[in-house]
Amino acid sequence: MSLLVVGSVAFDAMESPYGKVDRALGGAATYFAVAASFFTHVNLVGIVGDDFTEVDAQIFRGRTIDIDGLERATGKTFFWAGRYSENLNERVTLTTELNVFAAFKPKLPEKYRNSKFVFLTNIAPDLQRDVLHQVKVRPKLAALDTMNYWIERTNAELRETLKHVDILMINDSETRELSNEHNLLRAAKHIFKMGPTTLVVKRGEYGAMMVDKRGVFCVPAFPLEEPHDPTGAGDSFAGGFMGYLAGCGDKSDAALRRAMVYGSVLGSFAVEKFGLDRLRHLKRNEIHARARHFAKLTQFKL
Amino acid sequence: MSLLVVGSVAFDAMESPYGKVDRALGGAATYFAVAASFFTHVNLVGIVGDDFTEVDAQIFRGRTIDIDGLERATGKTFFWAGRYSENLNERVTLTTELNVFAAFKPKLPEKYRNSKFVFLTNIAPDLQRDVLHQVKVRPKLAALDTMNYWIERTNAELRETLKHVDILMINDSETRELSNEHNLLRAAKHIFKMGPTTLVVKRGEYGAMMVDKRGVFCVPAFPLEEPHDPTGAGDSFAGGFMGYLAGCGDKSDAALRRAMVYGSVLGSFAVEKFGLDRLRHLKRNEIHARARHFAKLTQFKL
Repeated sequence: MSLLVVGSVAFDAMESPYGKVDRALGGAATYFAVAASFFTHVNLVGIVGDDFTEVDAQIFRGRTIDIDGLERATGKTFFWAGRYSENLNERVTLTTELNVFAAFKPKLPEKYRNSKFVFLTNIAPDLQRDVLHQVKVRPKLAALDTMNYWIERTNAELRETLKHVDILMINDSETRELSNEHNLLRAAKHIFKMGPTTLVVKRGEYGAMMVDKRGVFCVPAFPLEEPHDPTGAGDSFAGGFMGYLAGCGDKSDAALRRAMVYGSVLGSFAVEKFGLDRLRHLKRNEIHARARHFAKLTQFKL
Repeated sequence: MSLLVVGSVAFDAMESPYGKVDRALGGAATYFAVAASFFTHVNLVGIVGDDFTEVDAQIFRGRTIDIDGLERATGKTFFWAGRYSENLNERVTLTTELNVFAAFKPKLPEKYRNSKFVFLTNIAPDLQRDVLHQVKVRPKLAALDTMNYWIERTNAELRETLKHVDILMINDSETRELSNEHNLLRAAKHIFKMGPTTLVVKRGEYGAMMVDKRGVFCVPAFPLEEPHDPTGAGDSFAGGFMGYLAGCGDKSDAALRRAMVYGSVLGSFAVEKFGLDRLRHLKRNEIHARARHFAKLTQFKL
């Protein structure tokens, strides 16, 4: 089933102890769409400026990603620059230039309005809700990412949007801030009262945790000796997760567990090289081999 | 096969948001021995003062724990007092009174000197090495815990001791400090050059990770809504881990994985109540039920 993603397409400049790039295609929706495209057809809604060229679009065109929903505006594309610390665990934002993204009003092409799987990357909660209104029938599965900025500044709007989604996918500090609970199990109970029935907590080097009424499922991060660039890891995780579910059209517990694994697989590949360099050349058989490696990493027999 | 543990037997005073105790039996060797005793016979070497009574000894006597190696000295037993933060993630040491423990010189009773499984809790590396010398034949499995204090102050002695152990079991910050590597895979490679062939990294609320030449195995922490007191969690983990291995006399990859799970099970029970209160009343069927719960927490089918 096709998967709709709404969010940023951007140019990024990154520095890490492993190197430096001045201008690489990035943005949450880009990482998400590329990761998800290994599993399913993706419809992308976003906005770019006139510095976004046909060469930049190649990453979408060579895949099952429809970019009829990628609006072209006059001006420059969203630009972000950041620097990672020695161990890649902290990052400093050097520049954020919203440019055309500042006026982003998602407009779904008619053919996207029957989407059964929807992912709302981290944008203003009002815009996220507006996207859901444009989808004709309540999707089979709607998931949302957000961040501290929206939790703090637009809490009421975020609460309103959360009433309409099934899965909230955020990191630990966001989970704690949104719920006012340090303990993640108690945090999940608070969040379930807000609307979502499933909470997926992204924990960086510690992996990810899914909580729903059936219980908890944990997956570790794939141990890598030389991660190069964490940019887009969470969005690639989300893309692998939602892409897998949309691809199989299933949302059973077994499917959600596999989705957690495929999300972790895509996130782990994303950090191996700068920007999209690793995902760009990734092969399906590498994805499946790493998923089997995740099994070796976690499985035991009593 | 019987398991030897050497380390502290202490009285602890703890405060957490869930309550307060003024004097509870504790100490690394105590938690370890009680946790391990669910799986195997344990021989304990430690030292207590004349304030340690027959009532205190009951926790050992009712189990398969031999305390002929628990020396009685004139003076007071090691005393530690600490306070945990609101979310239990940080602790402040309020008092450390080494008392009779300051002069601890482990002496193995003759019957302990054929031990096949040995665990050296966090004491001075020279004392740990002296214990290994007292064991007649190189044990089937020797494991060691240490801490930043010894890594910083007695680094050469620690390096010497590490040559003689199979498993190093420490937390993430200790791993990073000992190896001078942030990345845990690279840290493990450094540590393997020091002697151990297996590294077990205890990661608190994120679970534990085992690295050896065959690869990596991860187990999450058991999600608890109301952990009460983290004191002794790592020592109970070690007790469950080593107890399981000594109980089955096996050190295959499959057994080590199960040991990681049983370690996590014991660690998770330890934090549920203050001090030893939960382990004291723990039943074997609860241990096995929780181990099965760990399987549900981590297992997936591709």
